[in-house]
Amino acid sequence: MIKIAVLGYGNIGSGVVEVLKRNKDHVTKRAGQEIEVKYVLDLRDFPGDPMEDKVVHSIEPIINDPEVKIVVETMGGTTPAYEYVKAALEAGKSVSTSNKELVAKYGAELLELAKKNNINFLFEASVGGGIPIIRPLNQSVTSDEIYEITGILNGTTNYMLTKMEQQAMSFDAVLKEAQEKGYAERHPEADVEGYDACRKIAILSSLAFGCQVDFNDIYTEGITKISDTDMEYAKKLNYSIKLFGTSRKVDGKVYAMVSPVMVGKDHPLSNVNDVMNGILVRGDVIGDLMFYGAGAGKLPTASAVVADVIDEVKHLDTNITIQWSKNKLELGDFKDSKKQFFVRVSGDIENRRKEMEDLFGAYNIVTIGKDDEFGFITNCLSEKEFEEKANSCVGIQSRIRLAK
Amino acid sequence: MIKIAVLGYGNIGSGVVEVLKRNKDHVTKRAGQEIEVKYVLDLRDFPGDPMEDKVVHSIEPIINDPEVKIVVETMGGTTPAYEYVKAALEAGKSVSTSNKELVAKYGAELLELAKKNNINFLFEASVGGGIPIIRPLNQSVTSDEIYEITGILNGTTNYMLTKMEQQAMSFDAVLKEAQEKGYAERHPEADVEGYDACRKIAILSSLAFGCQVDFNDIYTEGITKISDTDMEYAKKLNYSIKLFGTSRKVDGKVYAMVSPVMVGKDHPLSNVNDVMNGILVRGDVIGDLMFYGAGAGKLPTASAVVADVIDEVKHLDTNITIQWSKNKLELGDFKDSKKQFFVRVSGDIENRRKEMEDLFGAYNIVTIGKDDEFGFITNCLSEKEFEEKANSCVGIQSRIRLAK
Repeated sequence: MIKIAVLGYGNIGSGVVEVLKRNKDHVTKRAGQEIEVKYVLDLRDFPGDPMEDKVVHSIEPIINDPEVKIVVETMGGTTPAYEYVKAALEAGKSVSTSNKELVAKYGAELLELAKKNNINFLFEASVGGGIPIIRPLNQSVTSDEIYEITGILNGTTNYMLTKMEQQAMSFDAVLKEAQEKGYAERHPEADVEGYDACRKIAILSSLAFGCQVDFNDIYTEGITKISDTDMEYAKKLNYSIKLFGTSRKVDGKVYAMVSPVMVGKDHPLSNVNDVMNGILVRGDVIGDLMFYGAGAGKLPTASAVVADVIDEVKHLDTNITIQWSKNKLELGDFKDSKKQFFVRVSGDIENRRKEMEDLFGAYNIVTIGKDDEFGFITNCLSEKEFEEKANSCVGIQSRIRLAK
Repeated sequence: MIKIAVLGYGNIGSGVVEVLKRNKDHVTKRAGQEIEVKYVLDLRDFPGDPMEDKVVHSIEPIINDPEVKIVVETMGGTTPAYEYVKAALEAGKSVSTSNKELVAKYGAELLELAKKNNINFLFEASVGGGIPIIRPLNQSVTSDEIYEITGILNGTTNYMLTKMEQQAMSFDAVLKEAQEKGYAERHPEADVEGYDACRKIAILSSLAFGCQVDFNDIYTEGITKISDTDMEYAKKLNYSIKLFGTSRKVDGKVYAMVSPVMVGKDHPLSNVNDVMNGILVRGDVIGDLMFYGAGAGKLPTASAVVADVIDEVKHLDTNITIQWSKNKLELGDFKDSKKQFFVRVSGDIENRRKEMEDLFGAYNIVTIGKDDEFGFITNCLSEKEFEEKANSCVGIQSRIRLAK
């Protein structure tokens, strides 16, 4: 029997306990031995809870107990998660975490520490919730040079954009509904400003390219400026609007960003709706792969954490190689990255058509029945070129990048 | 440096050699050491080919060469592949194969042999070409009880059905085009009769449920009876028609089949078009997962074979546990499995409406402008119930099952 400790008895932590209990026979068979939760670390007490007697309020008893071989971290944030996880690894305990902030910031360091101690630091649940993506990137797509990884990585914003598209609701109305349903938090910035997706694409990029991609280096734009008018244009042009985290290698340089994009119906991620997540991996040999599933939620996320625990039980004294070095990957300058843009501009479509064609190579020029504005798609331009042209031109109301 | 042998220098075998050469630095880094092809086994010679000097015409030099640690099998079929693979495993060499016939028939036995010898038998490429599905099932979705696995597992038939849907072409015309493009073989039975998909769903079911699922036990129906008229009805009802391999656990019994199905636009596999494959995994905790990618083709398939070789290099003296016992899983009786059906029946829609409502609980009753027939969807019925009702009723022209 293997004894484990769970740090944080919130949504995910209690989900881990639930999955271990619910699928006990199955998990035991898969792991080769029984897994028992010996401690639950939380500041709170849980009177009446089956875990009541296992609750501790400090990390010391866990670190000092040689019987605990695996520590599950589901607290979120980096303080004190980083300190606790580091102490666990230093004490020779493997760690499984769902904590994207921790992994994005300290992943390379914690992997190095695990390797040094011949144990494991696994984090399948930190990106895409229950979707197997970390392990496939690390163990399956190994013969390919990955040149792009793109994901719909945040369920809250995907739910909101899906609602806006399907029910013609405004951003504010959808946010309110999402908050009422518990899909969005009262302070929704981490989701709607793209910060959550940014950490996740940083983790995926680090794994795809094997070096440290700092999330602070990634251009990040949220969905707060997406309006119901934008959705009307998207519909007219047969696009959806999704929040993508993307990194792409072009001529040896990696360009990364988080931003809303217009997605054509034939794009592998166009059908990823509601709270679901999808991750597209493009390799030089394998072509396009797409992984789809629940990107959040108590049980799907806990499922991935427990799968990591099972893997750690099977590799108690063997480090599973994960290629993510501390060497920082210098991203290409975002201003140089090229794409097409959808643009909304004020004025009369016939009066300004030629100007837009000349300036932006505008095509698919459309109106949605408003007589004071119209929209179009530009040629492929660098961010810098687009910005210069847009600044030279009166009445640009908004722009949304096109997915490649 | 690790020396390997490639059995069969056809499409996939030469792809493996190409991937190892093309991505040599990357593969070396991932594997931790260089991988060199020492032998290529084929009945033919390849004068002028870079591998020319490595070609051998019998298995003996490979089996007897202690330097060869890994054998790649890409010959297809079970004779002599089974004999060769068994000999390689008995000689302590790990094997990576793309051969679905071999794996479906002998997978459990060969896994047992590999385990006994503390080496590995891996077969990621045998299902879904380049799509990582075997490893995720085995290592990622481990905390879940899987209750359904369903796939679009054959690229040829998916290409044909997509063309029939999008271009209103007949089965015969599409088959001819697919043969001209090299997507379908001159003798297309293995694809169009569903035999290929049957072996693949047998493999996936064996892994999902941990026991031997014999492909001979799986009810298998191909796409040869799907007509352009069926496609018209599907379009009218907002369905696509896809060839599914499915196995589903209901009340403790596993029911499996390969058959064309009508798929609603909100089904995770509805958007898997052309030669692409998609595999849906449903777990009790994780919910729906979907894996999408190129299900065939030289390089994508070779990518998966090489990924297995890399894993075998990293586990030279460690058996990677794969749960697939020789114990036979007795499938539930297909006749008892329940689903809805789309039915075409002759006669006038208004004359026969009530009869169909009474007999089948018919709804979504539609015509496509032919005055001598109409179509409808039935209630949920067992195969047996449906058959009895259909036999009791004149003029049933065809039926297509609905995807769940």
